Amino acid sequence: MLPQEVLREALKRGKLKSENFQGFEYLRFTDDFKDVPRGTVLYKDTVIWGYPHIGRIFQLSTGIREQFSAPFWVEEKVDGYNARVFSHEGQIYALTRGGYVCAFTTDRVLDFVNPRFFEDNPHLVLCMEVAGPENPYVEESPPYVREDVRFFLFDIMVKNRQDFLPYREKLKLIREYSLPSVENFGLFNLDQVEELKGILRRLNEEKREGVVLKEDSPKDKRVKYITSYANLNDIRVTSLNMLGLPPDYYTNRLLRLALFIEEEGIEKDEGLYMELGEAFLSGLFEACRMAKEEGKVRRVFRCRFRSKERALLFIEQIKHVSTHIQVNQLSLRKEGEFWLLEFEKVFLNMTGLLGHLLGGGSLVD
Amino acid sequence: MLPQEVLREALKRGKLKSENFQGFEYLRFTDDFKDVPRGTVLYKDTVIWGYPHIGRIFQLSTGIREQFSAPFWVEEKVDGYNARVFSHEGQIYALTRGGYVCAFTTDRVLDFVNPRFFEDNPHLVLCMEVAGPENPYVEESPPYVREDVRFFLFDIMVKNRQDFLPYREKLKLIREYSLPSVENFGLFNLDQVEELKGILRRLNEEKREGVVLKEDSPKDKRVKYITSYANLNDIRVTSLNMLGLPPDYYTNRLLRLALFIEEEGIEKDEGLYMELGEAFLSGLFEACRMAKEEGKVRRVFRCRFRSKERALLFIEQIKHVSTHIQVNQLSLRKEGEFWLLEFEKVFLNMTGLLGHLLGGGSLVD
Repeated sequence: MLPQEVLREALKRGKLKSENFQGFEYLRFTDDFKDVPRGTVLYKDTVIWGYPHIGRIFQLSTGIREQFSAPFWVEEKVDGYNARVFSHEGQIYALTRGGYVCAFTTDRVLDFVNPRFFEDNPHLVLCMEVAGPENPYVEESPPYVREDVRFFLFDIMVKNRQDFLPYREKLKLIREYSLPSVENFGLFNLDQVEELKGILRRLNEEKREGVVLKEDSPKDKRVKYITSYANLNDIRVTSLNMLGLPPDYYTNRLLRLALFIEEEGIEKDEGLYMELGEAFLSGLFEACRMAKEEGKVRRVFRCRFRSKERALLFIEQIKHVSTHIQVNQLSLRKEGEFWLLEFEKVFLNMTGLLGHLLGGGSLVD
Repeated sequence: MLPQEVLREALKRGKLKSENFQGFEYLRFTDDFKDVPRGTVLYKDTVIWGYPHIGRIFQLSTGIREQFSAPFWVEEKVDGYNARVFSHEGQIYALTRGGYVCAFTTDRVLDFVNPRFFEDNPHLVLCMEVAGPENPYVEESPPYVREDVRFFLFDIMVKNRQDFLPYREKLKLIREYSLPSVENFGLFNLDQVEELKGILRRLNEEKREGVVLKEDSPKDKRVKYITSYANLNDIRVTSLNMLGLPPDYYTNRLLRLALFIEEEGIEKDEGLYMELGEAFLSGLFEACRMAKEEGKVRRVFRCRFRSKERALLFIEQIKHVSTHIQVNQLSLRKEGEFWLLEFEKVFLNMTGLLGHLLGGGSLVD
């Protein structure tokens, strides 16, 4: 358990908040606080630690030697959102990175995860990426998830512990319970950089996000590396809501893109430049069109629920996630075996600023 | 004069600093403070007010009606740096926007401004843009200044007053003293938006920055409007030092670009996308090359001085402008009638980060 004085101080400073999901009461760290990461959750005598930040390298040729001193596992980094799945009193819950029990993820997890896993292992926490075109959070999805979502395991934590299960124990549990997991490209030596680059070139061509590298040692050191495709796609997908992102979002991705291209020796040709220019501008043109014609800049999301009650709960949850986004429910209807929820996120910064500027307003910079 | 208590408080908070230029002692507001703009300068019983910020519109069709209620003058906005030129005890000085007496600008102003102006008008301050490929501050310059710099008058202030001389008085003084000034496109009515757009299209084709519009009324309301060319060029020229800029520099220009193109009906074609993509990436590739081959990301500047002493003074001044930029003198030699100073600005953020990343370092984001 965390020291009482840390909890008291976090509560006092508003960094630890009380939440309730269908009667399950818990506390949630809203930000990093002292040594406790954002999204860490507490209930009764249990702590589920927040998922840690993983450093990113920009060059494989030098990065591998600089970061690792032992062979390392290579796993696909799937483009979705991070969930931590655990059981409590016979119920299975899924936490977002920020530490909310998410009604959507919780509703759908048993479509992908064998519940026997938690019966046998109530002390474990599955760290999974939820990805697909019908997820409520991120606008990107891997090319091989054509509809709905899928869950992909990448780590297993132990309740009350901040580190992960050893790699081979994770592999054993994946096999034993047929857990869906991210693609594993195997164990690499420090001198296999060229093979690794080959994998990255292939992932880039297949429009996949990148890899996470995990040292095969007790240190369990990790770094990630992202394809040029994913960097361009981040720009393409977010430019509609350019003002809703942290200001260094784009400079960061431009730098990654330049370094990826430099290292991979990808042609610096007109096709690349065109793709980047279009990634920036097409979303902005679309935002202008929306602001003019609809009076708001928005994006529509769809997702599929098993339970209608959880769909309604979810829409209430997501309304309070951001003060910069207004969420409006568009429809909720039964379709086949699912309840299909449609909602829009109205990007208030873009809507407000474009409305002001298109109406002839001025800005001082 | 400014109230004594404002001065005392600004001094106490470090917003008002004492400076000395070759024996001329003055005080300089380092930031906006209460109602006093950054760059405001005081000496003896004189205040030279900082040049005010001018709002920017993003759409002419709606912006003109929204901003103005009387005809307005249209002037070229020249791409250079802002200087305020004045005389004191027979000497002529030029202030930067930040309120430094600039050794370079001061050295060269009499090549462009008739000194009789200040003999006859010691109470006036000329607000001028200094532009050209051989200026020490900005990396852009207007296409029609092929070498060295030129000075362009756009406003005249009166010492101790915060507003400007009436427009027609300015025109009279320009004529009387043959002062070099920005191009004046004349007086426009509120319904001449299409003509104005025509001028902007031409300026865009001629690779010029844009216009400043000034209402022909006692209110003297001003706004500026920038061409698509200038926005692209800002990106192209600065991408080498992407991390040295405020984080919203690029999102701001992307938004302006999108709105300019929307309004002007410019083809959203591959050429435009390519130009934007190249603007972002070519500087970053060049920065990577420099970091690898030279161990630093830098840009070389040249400028011409009349006086060797002022060149040496200038290089000392510019060394202290930013903690993110290291300035190294490369050479100072007599060439024809000028002293030619060459120096480099080493961009420390880019140099440091690219060195770290190219060496295999990681970043947590």
